[in-house]
Amino acid sequence: MKIALDAMGGDLAPQATVQGALDALNHTQDNLHIILVGDKSQIQSELGNSIPNGLTIHPTTEVVTMHDDGSTVLRAKPDSSIVQGIRLIKDKKADAFISAGHTGAVMATSLFLLGRIPHVKRPCLGAYLQTETGGKIICDVGANPDAKPEHLLQFAIMASVYLDHVEGIKDNKVALINIGEEPSKGSELYQKAYQLLKDELPSFEGNVEARYIFDSHASVFVCDGFVGNNLVKFAEGWIMTFTNLMMKKIQSKLSYKVGAGLIKPVIDEIKNQYDYEEHGGAPLLGINGISIVSHGNSTPKAIMNSIFVAQKSINKNLIQDISKGIDEHLGAIS
Amino acid sequence: MKIALDAMGGDLAPQATVQGALDALNHTQDNLHIILVGDKSQIQSELGNSIPNGLTIHPTTEVVTMHDDGSTVLRAKPDSSIVQGIRLIKDKKADAFISAGHTGAVMATSLFLLGRIPHVKRPCLGAYLQTETGGKIICDVGANPDAKPEHLLQFAIMASVYLDHVEGIKDNKVALINIGEEPSKGSELYQKAYQLLKDELPSFEGNVEARYIFDSHASVFVCDGFVGNNLVKFAEGWIMTFTNLMMKKIQSKLSYKVGAGLIKPVIDEIKNQYDYEEHGGAPLLGINGISIVSHGNSTPKAIMNSIFVAQKSINKNLIQDISKGIDEHLGAIS
Repeated sequence: MKIALDAMGGDLAPQATVQGALDALNHTQDNLHIILVGDKSQIQSELGNSIPNGLTIHPTTEVVTMHDDGSTVLRAKPDSSIVQGIRLIKDKKADAFISAGHTGAVMATSLFLLGRIPHVKRPCLGAYLQTETGGKIICDVGANPDAKPEHLLQFAIMASVYLDHVEGIKDNKVALINIGEEPSKGSELYQKAYQLLKDELPSFEGNVEARYIFDSHASVFVCDGFVGNNLVKFAEGWIMTFTNLMMKKIQSKLSYKVGAGLIKPVIDEIKNQYDYEEHGGAPLLGINGISIVSHGNSTPKAIMNSIFVAQKSINKNLIQDISKGIDEHLGAIS
Repeated sequence: MKIALDAMGGDLAPQATVQGALDALNHTQDNLHIILVGDKSQIQSELGNSIPNGLTIHPTTEVVTMHDDGSTVLRAKPDSSIVQGIRLIKDKKADAFISAGHTGAVMATSLFLLGRIPHVKRPCLGAYLQTETGGKIICDVGANPDAKPEHLLQFAIMASVYLDHVEGIKDNKVALINIGEEPSKGSELYQKAYQLLKDELPSFEGNVEARYIFDSHASVFVCDGFVGNNLVKFAEGWIMTFTNLMMKKIQSKLSYKVGAGLIKPVIDEIKNQYDYEEHGGAPLLGINGISIVSHGNSTPKAIMNSIFVAQKSINKNLIQDISKGIDEHLGAIS
């Protein structure tokens, strides 16, 4: 199995990406081969000039930055690590691609070069959360600011297969994120989506308010990409603000400092558990190929986890089974 | 000044509502009169059978519960504390109404009985946040699941006047909540709203991603009610989960327990600061009358703060000045 990794993507690249690749090789029994895509001299300098077994370098000369327009990267930076990495899948030289770089560029380039799984209307981006009531996925968190009810149905199908295959979570129940439980709640899109999900999916449990996502026994939560993206970002901002403020206030008194030192392991543990991108990247679902977006801040551990997500996606035939799931509901898609 | 308070509204009513009214009377220099609307015997029992100066009871026989449909309460429970309390404003027997009860019922009944400020297309619900970078308001957080660009413009105008008059925050800058900074980002609604806000409001600063709301120097954040409601509820759920989980893990080790005890004052302080409803209720903006929704969990302090918000709204002519602000942009409204 060959996995292409964008060595230049993310705030900590190439140090974190190269280290993540090495860690993945050390922690797997599988016949894993990682292709580091990026600037050859930078990658080699990270590797200390010896290339370990299981690694190769695919040299590229351009780097996509956060200032680039994701939708034009394919044309504007054809020799970037993102474009070349995804091209490796298209050319059957890799089975998956991972990047902690420009999310929009990965999405747009994946869509252009790999296309969609047959009958998928819109690919979507999922956010995986490890909660006390089990693993959950929110989908879409950013690929589609404008969505239709049939898109939300397909998000539900794709995210359910993903949880089953990659996270090993069986019998996934689906919920629609809404501002109230009743079928009549929400915007026109959500009222129609409720009916469609109810008609098509035996696993549909109804609406759930965003505050109860963590307590719900459903595991797949669907919404449009505008809502989902704002949701996860606002919560991220709130938690960041909350913890920063706490750290600041703690400095004001010795007893606070002592107390904070004592419970630091607890806070670190929870922060890691709830960092949805640390877990292994956000899967881009519906693309006809395995393409994974890892957090911009990805540590070696996050990169390693993303590699394992790619590995499971390949081993468990994620794409084929999503395709089967989609085909079961073609009657509901215009 | 006469303020009608729904004595029966909220999880802790009538104890918290009656106590909040008493606290407000003890903490104001104004000529304040509070009308406790609700079950006479329950209220009297809370008051210990003596009615202090500045309080009267307006007896009602029905109570709106969370199982009632908010939009039909006016007809279904005409003698409820919510309907009767709002009717007091309509009949010029009160200057404002406050309830910690059924938000949808308060919104619908206020709209039916008091109507909208002239030329306001849709009333909205604001969430006030006290942050390290100053007070901020997110608007709409629930009144309008489907909105148009012109509604978002009016939300911005109304929320700006509110911050100025009630929170004393001057020179408010407006931002549009979006999934990216560029004008081309977001759904069709948000792309159009961007242009309209840019054309109409000199105070418009552009798009802001939800994660940067806390760091932004803007103070008014507009979005449709579906997004806003999900945003604040998801963050609420996340913080609740985060703190509950922390408390659970802390029980597992003595050193954690000691540490947690030491920093408890810090955590409590931050939790209170960021509880947007504790601050003094969510104002229902655009209604032709002062109607305030307080948190369902309102403590006496939250009720007292809501009374002070009502007081300032009256003293500073909130309704008249919102009306002026709306009239300045009539050309942009269809």
